[in-house]
Formats: sequence, structure tokens, C-alpha cells
Amino acid sequence: MAKIKKINHVAVVVGDVDEALKFWQDAMGIQLHHLEDVPSQKAQVAFLPVGESEVELVKPTSDDSGVAKFLAERGGGMHHLCFEVDDIAGMMAQLKEKGVRLLSEEPQVLPGRKMVFIHPKSTGGVLVELYEVTK
Amino acid sequence: MAKIKKINHVAVVVGDVDEALKFWQDAMGIQLHHLEDVPSQKAQVAFLPVGESEVELVKPTSDDSGVAKFLAERGGGMHHLCFEVDDIAGMMAQLKEKGVRLLSEEPQVLPGRKMVFIHPKSTGGVLVELYEVTK
Repeated sequence: MAKIKKINHVAVVVGDVDEALKFWQDAMGIQLHHLEDVPSQKAQVAFLPVGESEVELVKPTSDDSGVAKFLAERGGGMHHLCFEVDDIAGMMAQLKEKGVRLLSEEPQVLPGRKMVFIHPKSTGGVLVELYEVTK
Repeated sequence: MAKIKKINHVAVVVGDVDEALKFWQDAMGIQLHHLEDVPSQKAQVAFLPVGESEVELVKPTSDDSGVAKFLAERGGGMHHLCFEVDDIAGMMAQLKEKGVRLLSEEPQVLPGRKMVFIHPKSTGGVLVELYEVTK
């Protein structure tokens, strides 16, 4: 049976990464590891490791993404919760068997990871992401 | 300087714990550790450890709490993000010095922990909780 290993990250949508870092880094003391442009998500992402997990600050780089819509509607905040699994294909099969709706039939393959989102209708309103680290 | 150690938990507001466990426990395989009534929060909480953190499913037990309002308005979802700190008094002083607004002047003392919330206006829309484990 596929297993959840840990929280990989909590994604927080922000309108301005520098402004957000004033809270997360300067006040809370969680250090920025690196910034990355993620064109597939139409976003710039700031990675801030904390314990075995990360806070990811996600800034939309286009107006037509889900993240941009979230920012426009809510002014930012917690967007999704990502769990690391040992076997994403196994977990997807297990979820489908339980009637859970996934946002895609196949995991998206990115450098270092495979990922899939679960539909918030199946989770009680939480956008849940699953990662399998492949590097 | 006070330090954030890890994500202690992500709190998810639910209308029905048993229904929520069908997703989190039965489908995702994250095992329920225990259920607890938390009268100070007017809530029942299900604790599901995952890695060094927990998912906490929070069901309001009264209609007049912030959590009940959140459930009524949004139908559930991610409510707050809790970080464990080594020194909550030190962290509170550090945050105040940076102009961050806390929801109370003193930490609330509960069995096994001290806790305080940070105002979402100071975090870019995330309700952040800080814990110092005292047991």
C-alpha cells in the first residue's frame, strides 16, 4: 500500500515576494533557500525550508492561472497542501478506488518529482497535492 | 534569537469528522491518533500525525466561534498553519519589534503547550499559530 511520508510543503499565494519575505524571513526567521520560476505553473516560487517541510511563497506571473484568480479573489493566503508519497501511481490507484477525484489521470512529470492534485470536492475543501520525489 | 523548529500542524475545518476521516484516513492512509474535545476553542479535534507534523481536523461544537463562522462561510478547508518554536516569548518579542500584530499580548497556556496566533493582516492572509511545547 502506498504511503504518505510527510508534508512536503504548504503553498502560500502572495502578490509580492519581497513584501512576503519581510514577514516569513525577516520577522519569523525562516530563511529563503532559493527563488525559482515555474513556467508550467505560471508562477515564481520562493522556497523556505522549515524542519522536514517547506513554506512555498507562490506569486503568479500571469493573469490567467488558478493562482492568479485566487490572489485576485482572496488577496493571498494558504493555497494548497502537498504531501510526499513513496509511490504516486500506487497512491493514485488507491484514491481512485475510494472514489476520490484527481485533477489529472496521469501524474505530471517535472524535474525531480512527479505530482498530481486532488480535487477539493473530494477533500472537504482543501486543495491537496501529492509529490513523489524522483531524484 | 527564537527559532521556528518545524510545522507542528495544519488545521483543516470540517463539518463532520467521520466523513472527513473517510478521505484523510481511509483513502490517504493517514491514521487517526486520537480525538479530543477542546472547549477553549469550542471544537472537537482529530489528530492525524504525518511525518514530524500533524493534520488536525477541527469541527466546531458551537455556532459562535471563528471556526464555526469559517465553516459556514467556506464550507470547510485549511484554517491555520501552526509552527513550533523553541521560545514563544522570544519569538513574540521579535515579531512585535518587526511590527507584526499578535492576537493576544500573552501566550495562552494550555496543558503541554503555550500558544499564540498572529493576525492574518501581518502574514499576507494566513492565520499563523505559534506553539511552544512545554511538556
